[in-house]
Amino acid sequence: MTAGTNRQILLIEKPTGKLAPEHFKLHDAPMPEPDDGEVLLRVLYISLDAANRAWMHGATYRSAIETNTVMAGGGLAEVVSSRAAGFAPGDLVFGDTGWQTFAAVAAGHLTKLPRLEPLTYLLSVYGIAGLTAYFGLINVGKPKAGETVVVSAAAGSVGSLVGQIAKIKGCRVVGIAGGADKCRWLTSELGFDAAVDYKAGPVFKALKAAAPQGIDVYFDNVGGDILEACLFQMNQFGRIACCGAVSQYDGPPSATGPRGVPGLIVVKRLTMQGFIVMDFDAQRPQALADLQAWVKAGKLKVQEDIIDGLANAPRALVGLLAGDNRGKRMVKV
Amino acid sequence: MTAGTNRQILLIEKPTGKLAPEHFKLHDAPMPEPDDGEVLLRVLYISLDAANRAWMHGATYRSAIETNTVMAGGGLAEVVSSRAAGFAPGDLVFGDTGWQTFAAVAAGHLTKLPRLEPLTYLLSVYGIAGLTAYFGLINVGKPKAGETVVVSAAAGSVGSLVGQIAKIKGCRVVGIAGGADKCRWLTSELGFDAAVDYKAGPVFKALKAAAPQGIDVYFDNVGGDILEACLFQMNQFGRIACCGAVSQYDGPPSATGPRGVPGLIVVKRLTMQGFIVMDFDAQRPQALADLQAWVKAGKLKVQEDIIDGLANAPRALVGLLAGDNRGKRMVKV
Repeated sequence: MTAGTNRQILLIEKPTGKLAPEHFKLHDAPMPEPDDGEVLLRVLYISLDAANRAWMHGATYRSAIETNTVMAGGGLAEVVSSRAAGFAPGDLVFGDTGWQTFAAVAAGHLTKLPRLEPLTYLLSVYGIAGLTAYFGLINVGKPKAGETVVVSAAAGSVGSLVGQIAKIKGCRVVGIAGGADKCRWLTSELGFDAAVDYKAGPVFKALKAAAPQGIDVYFDNVGGDILEACLFQMNQFGRIACCGAVSQYDGPPSATGPRGVPGLIVVKRLTMQGFIVMDFDAQRPQALADLQAWVKAGKLKVQEDIIDGLANAPRALVGLLAGDNRGKRMVKV
Repeated sequence: MTAGTNRQILLIEKPTGKLAPEHFKLHDAPMPEPDDGEVLLRVLYISLDAANRAWMHGATYRSAIETNTVMAGGGLAEVVSSRAAGFAPGDLVFGDTGWQTFAAVAAGHLTKLPRLEPLTYLLSVYGIAGLTAYFGLINVGKPKAGETVVVSAAAGSVGSLVGQIAKIKGCRVVGIAGGADKCRWLTSELGFDAAVDYKAGPVFKALKAAAPQGIDVYFDNVGGDILEACLFQMNQFGRIACCGAVSQYDGPPSATGPRGVPGLIVVKRLTMQGFIVMDFDAQRPQALADLQAWVKAGKLKVQEDIIDGLANAPRALVGLLAGDNRGKRMVKV
């Protein structure tokens, strides 16, 4: 990269099957010029999320990603210059910067962030991952002490926090993750009561052994067969917090949904509720205060998986969709 | 039937496919003798409900029905003699009397009912059907004036009331029912804004035309393809009240669920909630007061479909599962 250019990663083709690095390309563009009301940002870290892949399927809670544009994604960035009131050089912000080194973004689409150490916590435990875990578990799952909470993608950025918060709330916690190493990490390091390795055999039986009292709250990050296995083991008046469906993102849309919908929902009086972290913006200060207190007290361990270099972002996202990461994956630009 | 005998209908075989009259038989048993704490009841009317069929599949919110026992079902009955405090000859009660002319039932399983005219309203609008419509729509669906409410099995006992209550609440109401006659009845007699005949063609397109603003509340009585069609047309923050899944009852369990679960639930932030009328017992007096006021004011039309004679109950239930009825079907014993 020469001075005055903006290194970008473009999505050049929408995958019909699995996402691969070939769907992206590096591109050097001129430095962006902020308009009135915009700020020029230098991107420090880019958040990688399974949702990035879902955005390629079409409009979701955001508009669809188009090809031959900068790949969309949330970034932690520093203000270089500002043409917007309230933003000054050196300010830290979060916003959809996209996968590039510099971005000009409308001030209204940015969230100002405090400087704290380590800075990366602003993208993990104090960022979307932490807030998603917090609101999804507490506001949607509504766990009560003594209840059994199950979380899938449990070694991921959100799942690893969900399980720990559920422990803080006095619940019995079972994590579902892929591989013996991840499962061991959940129980030995993060304090989960049990873990189910979905790669080791049928989930239904292993889950039954790990959650013998049934499931009161299921925090669903994956959808598909694992959601189905949990549905059949939910207790009466159980709650399913629908956070994501990563099993469905990296390929064509599934032709079927889980069995037991709506039959089990009726007879067990279950509630399945979808949510997105932005829905709870008004309660953000309380959530951040709780998360910070738990981190300081050593009750919440933060695992990060930092990939170095913008050029590695495509491969890092592909790996995330395959479950390579442990904790919050991000790219240091 | 000779004096002193109790005419019963037994379930003699659990259907593996569709239910047929051959799965039942008439049987004359001795008159039941109430134990201490029980009352002897003369059954006046038996409620026929799609749920009767679901009970044959196994334990639901009640234990499974066994073969060679009296077919289970709710009944409106009169106390003949009482060995329980608080019950006297002539009292009217509702309880699971089963399909028979007399029953001895524990007082704790009975609900005392006021005498009113017509008596059958105690099984329809003031019975489980009316309360299910009321609580499911108001407490689970939470409709706001101006929103679009869609209800399936709309010409049935529950659906026909759901749509009318939604109109009372100021909503735009679309009913889904089978056949042009039922659909015409919904719009011309019951005040629905539109009706979709699921037998006339694909539901998705017709529903899109009938609910051009999308769906805010879907009251689901049927599950299956119709639930799927509605899921794809729900608005953000929409609510699905899961009341039943009659499309799934009369045959082997479905091998798949609706597409879009959980993907659409997440991106649209939907809530799907199952419920059973008993969950709202504490709010029954208010519900009954509202229902009675609406009936008296002519805002709620009550449609009943009364089949004469206990022996006709099997055929009447089979017909109900095929959608033959309009409004609340019951058997006059």
